[in-house]
Amino acid sequence: MRRCQFDWRGNRMNKTRIYMDYNATAPLLPEAREAMMAALDLPGNPSSVHAEGRIARSRISAARRQVAALVGAPAANVTFTSGATEAAATLLNPHYKMGKADLFISHLYVSAVEHPCVLAGGHFAPDQMTTIRVDHDGIVDLAQLTVLLEAHDRSTGMPMVAVQMANNETGICQPVLQVAEIVNKAGGILVVDAVQAAGRMPVDMSASGIDFLFISSHKLGGPKGAGAIVSAGEIMMPKPLIPGGGQEKGHRSGTENPPAICGFGAACAVALQSLSEGIVDMGARRDSVESAMRALAPDCIIYGQDQMRLNNTIFFCLPGLKAETAQISFDLEGIAVSAGSACSSGKVGPSHVLAAMGRDTALGGVRVSIGPGTSDEDVNRFLAAFDKINNKRLDQLHLHDTSAS
Amino acid sequence: MRRCQFDWRGNRMNKTRIYMDYNATAPLLPEAREAMMAALDLPGNPSSVHAEGRIARSRISAARRQVAALVGAPAANVTFTSGATEAAATLLNPHYKMGKADLFISHLYVSAVEHPCVLAGGHFAPDQMTTIRVDHDGIVDLAQLTVLLEAHDRSTGMPMVAVQMANNETGICQPVLQVAEIVNKAGGILVVDAVQAAGRMPVDMSASGIDFLFISSHKLGGPKGAGAIVSAGEIMMPKPLIPGGGQEKGHRSGTENPPAICGFGAACAVALQSLSEGIVDMGARRDSVESAMRALAPDCIIYGQDQMRLNNTIFFCLPGLKAETAQISFDLEGIAVSAGSACSSGKVGPSHVLAAMGRDTALGGVRVSIGPGTSDEDVNRFLAAFDKINNKRLDQLHLHDTSAS
Repeated sequence: MRRCQFDWRGNRMNKTRIYMDYNATAPLLPEAREAMMAALDLPGNPSSVHAEGRIARSRISAARRQVAALVGAPAANVTFTSGATEAAATLLNPHYKMGKADLFISHLYVSAVEHPCVLAGGHFAPDQMTTIRVDHDGIVDLAQLTVLLEAHDRSTGMPMVAVQMANNETGICQPVLQVAEIVNKAGGILVVDAVQAAGRMPVDMSASGIDFLFISSHKLGGPKGAGAIVSAGEIMMPKPLIPGGGQEKGHRSGTENPPAICGFGAACAVALQSLSEGIVDMGARRDSVESAMRALAPDCIIYGQDQMRLNNTIFFCLPGLKAETAQISFDLEGIAVSAGSACSSGKVGPSHVLAAMGRDTALGGVRVSIGPGTSDEDVNRFLAAFDKINNKRLDQLHLHDTSAS
Repeated sequence: MRRCQFDWRGNRMNKTRIYMDYNATAPLLPEAREAMMAALDLPGNPSSVHAEGRIARSRISAARRQVAALVGAPAANVTFTSGATEAAATLLNPHYKMGKADLFISHLYVSAVEHPCVLAGGHFAPDQMTTIRVDHDGIVDLAQLTVLLEAHDRSTGMPMVAVQMANNETGICQPVLQVAEIVNKAGGILVVDAVQAAGRMPVDMSASGIDFLFISSHKLGGPKGAGAIVSAGEIMMPKPLIPGGGQEKGHRSGTENPPAICGFGAACAVALQSLSEGIVDMGARRDSVESAMRALAPDCIIYGQDQMRLNNTIFFCLPGLKAETAQISFDLEGIAVSAGSACSSGKVGPSHVLAAMGRDTALGGVRVSIGPGTSDEDVNRFLAAFDKINNKRLDQLHLHDTSAS
């Protein structure tokens, strides 16, 4: 795997670090790096009509086909953005167009475990939003969703539902096909956050009943600075969040970013090949790591263990040890893991995902998320650190018990 | 200068091309490329608390100081975006916050020659916008602005004015300090598009009376995919266009893009040094090129010639030769110039800038925009192509005259 040999000041460190925080951002794939470099050395604005501009444009078209292929959509239905958060802010908008006609969406229904960029509700006002509860394992309550949509007053406008394919903290997958069936029946619009799912499990827009999904380049090994909205058709689209020069068929203005977009395309092509060749056997590795963790710490809680989950994610806690403290201990052992999501600048607060699941938020959860670059040696070093941190925990719990008695 | 040795299919070409379309996008500076590469090889999400995340964060802080220094602002007042168009869409919003209090802006006044990302009005409705006229040389009508602001009904909300520092097509500079005086007197908010000006002329936010300006990385030799909003203070800010994880102090969510941001910072540092060392003597070169053009074609019209203009831009037309045709002829001669702006995907329409100036839009204008990488040889080859294209024009005009007689 890629190793960071620098400390936080950028000085070289002697110890090789292990990166296990792919759900925050995945290291850049060599193929994505190469595609970026090739685009970086081309001058030209993709909107210019001279030779330099036309070359840049043709590279973007090729990348669009690569991104579309990963999610089973026509290239024409891919709109590039600067990332998934921008995509969410664009899609979560009461004002849509159906061709030239206006389409008003009066209410947004989101699951309680969505990423903050969806929970923020985009451009819906707080009183235009309702949160759908999840169960103890983080699965959206389909019965509540059905009831809410049946009660939705369509005379005010259409309903929109936003549900993620897989959770960024727990890796737990939502029953998106069932959600789509309910939403379609109610005549609503379904927006799916496929950021963590894309490239880690098959995503097929064509057979899903999903109206819109959005994905992010840097979560699947592409560069930061690119994301995409994928729509089921070309006719219904949100009012542009970023108007201007009319790029991306008028859906998203601003000079296109060929290096980021080409790197994104290359990462999608790698991910698609990995998925279709069936070489993503991370699931078996994850299960064996979890078995080893439970053998070392039988009281270790692994969230959503019996649910369908991303096969690269383990979200756990050790009773008596705060996740935040555990994360720092792993960091000192040279292993990058996360306590909650990395979406808020530097701040680590209680996990809204665990809160929605009715779990102990004071304890929190440690997220270990691996990727194609993770080696057996990395896994062994993680388990050794886990053992050390767990033993320290047990010592402290024991000391605590003794002093209390 | 950087040369493109590929045709539009990406095949190597024998002829070295000359890039003279810096106002569409400037070739990446070596210093910016190096800074990007250094950031590209760091794993880590800047919002993660582990060592990898902290390194990424510290690099972004350094870049923020570099960007701030170019425009004479404190680093804390710089908010990174994915580009200038996103920055414009963020700033042009009726809903602002002054600390925790809401601030409503009821009307937007924009000059008629603004870039499409400003003319689109961001999130103001069409009936909340008024266009300020410009004169024959493209200079905003200060008297009309004064009258409009005096007539503005402040009981409905504050007025906002958006004026560019320099025009992307003509290079003509607006009297921003005078505009600021008028806007400040009227208690309005002034937003300045400094995209083409930054790095090409001194920009000093601290002494300008400007409330907000925005700049773009790729116009000054940085990578595409980064831009910045620079505010006069930290208290008054627009409602976030992209809400979510709370990055950029909550003003712009989404995972930060360290390679693009670091490249942007490096390009700003280079530009600042060039400006402060006074080595930007492109103005003299531009004047000598224009003299040579007039010697070859005495009827050549150079727009805004007597106005304060960017010293890298020549916007001209040759009577009888459509700008679009001239642009294609230059392209075939291996020289990338522009006919109008490159902001709309591939489409070349009549220039709204020339229309606002009351000029002949059917004829249009050819934009030649150079940069630090342009060599004397490039200039000579441009003049040779200009001569050839002009002679062909004269032949055709002559033929036309003969056949008509």
